[in-house]
Amino acid sequence: MPELPSAPITLEGSSVLHQMYRFDWEAWKQRSNEEKREVEEEVVSLLAKWEKGTGDSAKNQSAVFSLIGHKGDLLFLHFNDSFSGLNQIELELAQTRLNAFLIPQHSYLSVVELGLYESSAKTYAALAEKGLTQGSPEWDAGVQELVQRQSSAMAQRLFPSIPAAKYICFYPMDRRRGEARNWYTETMAERQRMMHEHGMIGRRYAGSVRQIITGSIGFDDWEWGVDLFAEDPLVFKKLIYEMRFDEVSAVYALFGQFFIGIRLQTGDLALWLRGKLTSSNSI
Amino acid sequence: MPELPSAPITLEGSSVLHQMYRFDWEAWKQRSNEEKREVEEEVVSLLAKWEKGTGDSAKNQSAVFSLIGHKGDLLFLHFNDSFSGLNQIELELAQTRLNAFLIPQHSYLSVVELGLYESSAKTYAALAEKGLTQGSPEWDAGVQELVQRQSSAMAQRLFPSIPAAKYICFYPMDRRRGEARNWYTETMAERQRMMHEHGMIGRRYAGSVRQIITGSIGFDDWEWGVDLFAEDPLVFKKLIYEMRFDEVSAVYALFGQFFIGIRLQTGDLALWLRGKLTSSNSI
Amino acid sequence: MPELPSAPITLEGSSVLHQMYRFDWEAWKQRSNEEKREVEEEVVSLLAKWEKGTGDSAKNQSAVFSLIGHKGDLLFLHFNDSFSGLNQIELELAQTRLNAFLIPQHSYLSVVELGLYESSAKTYAALAEKGLTQGSPEWDAGVQELVQRQSSAMAQRLFPSIPAAKYICFYPMDRRRGEARNWYTETMAERQRMMHEHGMIGRRYAGSVRQIITGSIGFDDWEWGVDLFAEDPLVFKKLIYEMRFDEVSAVYALFGQFFIGIRLQTGDLALWLRGKLTSSNSI
Amino acid sequence: MPELPSAPITLEGSSVLHQMYRFDWEAWKQRSNEEKREVEEEVVSLLAKWEKGTGDSAKNQSAVFSLIGHKGDLLFLHFNDSFSGLNQIELELAQTRLNAFLIPQHSYLSVVELGLYESSAKTYAALAEKGLTQGSPEWDAGVQELVQRQSSAMAQRLFPSIPAAKYICFYPMDRRRGEARNWYTETMAERQRMMHEHGMIGRRYAGSVRQIITGSIGFDDWEWGVDLFAEDPLVFKKLIYEMRFDEVSAVYALFGQFFIGIRLQTGDLALWLRGKLTSSNSI
Amino acid sequence: MPELPSAPITLEGSSVLHQMYRFDWEAWKQRSNEEKREVEEEVVSLLAKWEKGTGDSAKNQSAVFSLIGHKGDLLFLHFNDSFSGLNQIELELAQTRLNAFLIPQHSYLSVVELGLYESSAKTYAALAEKGLTQGSPEWDAGVQELVQRQSSAMAQRLFPSIPAAKYICFYPMDRRRGEARNWYTETMAERQRMMHEHGMIGRRYAGSVRQIITGSIGFDDWEWGVDLFAEDPLVFKKLIYEMRFDEVSAVYALFGQFFIGIRLQTGDLALWLRGKLTSSNSI
Repeated sequence: MPELPSAPITLEGSSVLHQMYRFDWEAWKQRSNEEKREVEEEVVSLLAKWEKGTGDSAKNQSAVFSLIGHKGDLLFLHFNDSFSGLNQIELELAQTRLNAFLIPQHSYLSVVELGLYESSAKTYAALAEKGLTQGSPEWDAGVQELVQRQSSAMAQRLFPSIPAAKYICFYPMDRRRGEARNWYTETMAERQRMMHEHGMIGRRYAGSVRQIITGSIGFDDWEWGVDLFAEDPLVFKKLIYEMRFDEVSAVYALFGQFFIGIRLQTGDLALWLRGKLTSSNSI
Repeated sequence: MPELPSAPITLEGSSVLHQMYRFDWEAWKQRSNEEKREVEEEVVSLLAKWEKGTGDSAKNQSAVFSLIGHKGDLLFLHFNDSFSGLNQIELELAQTRLNAFLIPQHSYLSVVELGLYESSAKTYAALAEKGLTQGSPEWDAGVQELVQRQSSAMAQRLFPSIPAAKYICFYPMDRRRGEARNWYTETMAERQRMMHEHGMIGRRYAGSVRQIITGSIGFDDWEWGVDLFAEDPLVFKKLIYEMRFDEVSAVYALFGQFFIGIRLQTGDLALWLRGKLTSSNSI
Repeated sequence: MPELPSAPITLEGSSVLHQMYRFDWEAWKQRSNEEKREVEEEVVSLLAKWEKGTGDSAKNQSAVFSLIGHKGDLLFLHFNDSFSGLNQIELELAQTRLNAFLIPQHSYLSVVELGLYESSAKTYAALAEKGLTQGSPEWDAGVQELVQRQSSAMAQRLFPSIPAAKYICFYPMDRRRGEARNWYTETMAERQRMMHEHGMIGRRYAGSVRQIITGSIGFDDWEWGVDLFAEDPLVFKKLIYEMRFDEVSAVYALFGQFFIGIRLQTGDLALWLRGKLTSSNSI
Repeated sequence: MPELPSAPITLEGSSVLHQMYRFDWEAWKQRSNEEKREVEEEVVSLLAKWEKGTGDSAKNQSAVFSLIGHKGDLLFLHFNDSFSGLNQIELELAQTRLNAFLIPQHSYLSVVELGLYESSAKTYAALAEKGLTQGSPEWDAGVQELVQRQSSAMAQRLFPSIPAAKYICFYPMDRRRGEARNWYTETMAERQRMMHEHGMIGRRYAGSVRQIITGSIGFDDWEWGVDLFAEDPLVFKKLIYEMRFDEVSAVYALFGQFFIGIRLQTGDLALWLRGKLTSSNSI
Repeated sequence: MPELPSAPITLEGSSVLHQMYRFDWEAWKQRSNEEKREVEEEVVSLLAKWEKGTGDSAKNQSAVFSLIGHKGDLLFLHFNDSFSGLNQIELELAQTRLNAFLIPQHSYLSVVELGLYESSAKTYAALAEKGLTQGSPEWDAGVQELVQRQSSAMAQRLFPSIPAAKYICFYPMDRRRGEARNWYTETMAERQRMMHEHGMIGRRYAGSVRQIITGSIGFDDWEWGVDLFAEDPLVFKKLIYEMRFDEVSAVYALFGQFFIGIRLQTGDLALWLRGKLTSSNSI
């Protein structure tokens, strides 16, 4: 029997850019109240435009978060239908007067990704049973058929709205490629089994946390980015701690920096610029 | 017999933010004495407010420490009842005139955590004996019952006052997930045994050092933060050196940067701004 | 039988320099429109000169890309017939008025490289069969004969034009020299086999992505640089993800930072300086 | 027989702070000669005060070194009887006019440490033979008795004068806690044996180099700091190279950054500020 | 038979400092032509002085290189008869007006080193055959006799002139001290064998590249620095790539950053400051 492919089939959706900035409060304070109001109006209207998205598909959205700690003060999160769209947003933000107070600290470029471990295994087996060879036109057509069917079925998850939850948790991660333990030399069946167990835990948290996985192989310095959205940030810790004992995480997951932010609605950004997280300040 | 959970049950308390800053002495020196006094009064009154805490619970407190070495000059330590509360404090500090002299160097976001290794093992065993399955509503109710009972019993330790000791030692740490030695693939019983031995050492130092463990999985770049408080800083060295030979530390502990600070009482910060650690200067 | 050489024969072509810069938008905004136009004209004419290349060979070319994310805003990519030529270009760019807005972030120095795994094995075997000893004048002559023949045959690939595709993906990489898994202690035959399988995947993507491999052993901090050019950036992810399961990548590849850019034609740079990625803005 | 403690008994002496600074020569040049002389006088008198030390014990001393290379231009080395004393010195230095030209690059906080491997083994064995249990009051009294006796006997080494040699070499180090080779899981007897062999080499260099070991577990980012003092810097290389083949160094030592400095006597600092290492300039 | 020493005997020669700087072109452009000429004259005359060297021995020399890439623009390479001499040169450079445009990026401190693997083995064996013990006065005298004889014989290589080649390649390196593969626990005979094979490759490149090895154990953050000098930079890649398959490099070598520079003759530096690499510009 011919060897089956090792890489699972993935579906890709929105292009995603995370931008983390420090805010230069001392420069900001030196501006007149009138100037501050103008800057606020400019950025709030730009955000409103981005948040609504453009075009029919509403694939283009942006959101702002107030970050906790020295790794940044503001996180701009953009979902777009292309990388060039994301780059144009960067250029637009750079042209604003707000940009004078934004000191770039970090960013992350990725695309929404759904890994089809179970469908891939079935599809590869079915194609191989038909006597098709990997890489042949018929094989590729069989894979494409799956991709298109699933992409339609999962359009909502591929081009998601940015969840409205109060808190965001973002972190990048890799699968380990160690000398002794190497995700990429495990068999497809083993990886599928481990990913399935991993997913079972996530499912138990479905009611309290929304998760968006983005792939960044070839795009940024880690293989995946993970965004979690929840009303209660403790859920981030509970979920990730429980998962850390999973075989796939315990043995094969390597983590980058963690960023925690609080969602700023369009109006809240103007408040934030006055040093208040929310209008009620009832936090 | 069904497999028992791998993750111990944890209790969570206060949200905690460490902020490490360099102080821009040269900018400070250029201000008039009158301006310096105004800045001092503003920050001392803000600190007094934070130190008292707000609301009934007195869960909200802050303290300031003079750091030794180039990693920072001032450490602001905040205990709060929420992450948004911590973020609001950051915004308030940014609005002060003192902020013009504070250069962010580092920070750490975490929550007070108590790991219930022994209770977890007993509870899991008891629930499993009743024939309950992990993740079932009855199982979860059994776990919740433990969490609530213990949270009440340990409220003092979950929402602690910031100890009044002269010295603080802060460092973050991970449990090793190496290719050959991996904490997260050890059995619950083994981890419980090692944590118990570890705790025995800590107990011998109970009279001379106060320890507050905070969890930061999902919140910051290490898994835990450790704060030690003592009148004599040598105790930090003695304790950590002795523990380093523990199995759990020797084999499974990875350490980040260490920060050593000296507590500044509210009035002492004004002195500090004049270059004196204490009024008596009798150090 | 005498031991054969371990290193494959490589052919070298163009000298290549990647320059990654942040752009200081705030300083730029402070210039008058007239000054901006002058800067634009200066740099566009310099780029046009570089893009055309100089001399008969047209070996000297340059291209500019708009980078996504905080790792840089502009990427200047230079192909030249010598390292001193690249250094002269650096000096020329430094003399422009644009240079006042360019903040160096990263760079990469390398030469186009073709690794002749298959020819090397054959040539080494043939020379050894003739009874020649490695390092003898006759042996060296035999190798040189291959190098010259292949260099002529592959001149197009050794001194390539910069592909005109919309997107670029650049990253440096090493072959692992671990304690247990070490590329450089594998036999030539094993390395040849793994490189062959690796190449098979690349071939399947030949229609949608152009790849230029540059060698940087002795020149920069990684062993190779990889440039991929495509109209659709998703292809970068698909290609690299599929390759990651290859034995040579799964076990032996270590990756540096990834940079994603969008090609700016000469005229587009002037637009970019006004905050627009393309004239149509139809992205 | 009960298990004996794993940690050797250590004696602690002076608190030590290394401060590494770059010197801002361009800012310095802009000052008038009169102002420079004033700054020189201020710092020379401060240094003279620190060098003399304060109080009866003469435990408090400071010295200045001219550093070679980009890691710093000046090293201030302070020995003090407490961490708060060191922090007060930092604050005093920050108040000087010299501080305007000092750019912090690095620092290291530690205490003079003597590890009593041989006495520890004997004492533990003797206490165990008496049937005492580790951690019991009688056991602790037995250990304390040793500590006090040895501290008196070794007071000179615990509170040393800063050696007057021309050159200093400072570096921090760790004992390896690897997955396969781990200092902290070796037996006391094995560690004692290796430390003894290590010490034999040091003894052969006793005539040409003075060594001060400081412990920094719990205080700074490495476990120990090593200061070497010699008239001929080649001795640093000879000593450390020979030791690198020792079992304890070859297998278990991890090294941080190395700093090389040249002692500036009080008067020499004023010369240094005029760009001369020594008055004779006969170097 | 008594154990022989593990460390080979080394000879040491010139003290060497590499200084890597970025050049602040924008600040430079703001100076008047007259001022620029004065700065040029000052530095060219200083370089001429350094290049000639001082004293009888002509051990003191300096050279300047134009660096390629963001890691630096200028490399100052100094050979001197002492570390204090190098530090004095640093101070002299800092006093020049050129210093205002030099932004320190990196440096490296080391001494020219010749490792006498073969002589060491023979000498150790001969001394042991005479019944002498390592560390005894007779043993040390025997070693010293070798050192002095060889130092005289190799004076040219210990105090070399800076080669006049067009290109320089500098990088630091370590010998691996891994948990499984450790250079420092290999036997002297094994190390001697591997170093011998390593040297054989170098010998084949002797006509096209000059190599100067400097030792930096105890002086800087890596164990050795390597300087290669060649007319054709491709030779650096060929040599290092071929060596990478050597046992000693493949298994035991760890490399730091690579720096590539182009020699600027004294007059060329003045041209360089006008943005030209050479007067002919025929590169």
